[in-house]
Amino acid sequence: MAAGDPCVEASASAAPQDIVTIIVCSSCRDATGTDARPRPGEVLASATRAQNTASDVRVEEVECLGNCKRRLSAALTKPGAWSYVFGDLRPEAAGDLVAGAQLFHTSTDGLLPWRGRPDSLKRGLVARIPPLALFKDKT
Amino acid sequence: MAAGDPCVEASASAAPQDIVTIIVCSSCRDATGTDARPRPGEVLASATRAQNTASDVRVEEVECLGNCKRRLSAALTKPGAWSYVFGDLRPEAAGDLVAGAQLFHTSTDGLLPWRGRPDSLKRGLVARIPPLALFKDKT
Repeated sequence: MAAGDPCVEASASAAPQDIVTIIVCSSCRDATGTDARPRPGEVLASATRAQNTASDVRVEEVECLGNCKRRLSAALTKPGAWSYVFGDLRPEAAGDLVAGAQLFHTSTDGLLPWRGRPDSLKRGLVARIPPLALFKDKT
Repeated sequence: MAAGDPCVEASASAAPQDIVTIIVCSSCRDATGTDARPRPGEVLASATRAQNTASDVRVEEVECLGNCKRRLSAALTKPGAWSYVFGDLRPEAAGDLVAGAQLFHTSTDGLLPWRGRPDSLKRGLVARIPPLALFKDKT
């Protein structure tokens, strides 16, 4: 789009199309169920932010991803792509989340590749949600 | 936006902002694990489509929502809102999905209300993913 395009200006505050966002559930407890602070989710979020050096990957926290049955949780999202939720993560999984995000960033088909995906993001898959663009030709 | 707004035209093929999409996993098996057709997911998708009479709710199918551990699955999505994935649904849950979608449509805060939500969409919650707009003020 040309500079000054109103569509670009209107969406200037939203995520650019090539940014992968790691969303960590900061309220997640570990297997002991303790409320002690920092919560494992906070530890994972901080570690992920510290390990991420890519300008095209950002790390955010939310209070709850609704995945409490599978404990420590995070999501990977990219505009126009599928969104992924993972559970059963360990507080040490920060490197896996960063690696998964970088792998997702290289994807051109909207999917997080299976090949090369860290093991914790294979066995920890909880769900994936397609982008609405997947259905755009059917409306 | 005014008629002829280029942003509206550019996104004409995407979902309108006020549409709730029910996404049913059509490949889901039931507890027996049988591959017999139609799969319970297909039955649920067809029944949901049949029961939906709202023009602002649409029903789509995908091959897999990645939630195989919690069997029969569906998602509710709305542009700019949180996305929800549900599992442990019965093939008879079509009415619940339609009711949940209509409830979601009335929501103005991007969340699927807990009050009034069908029970199957309470106990069946698998995960929720926030909209990227939630983080827009932090970039």
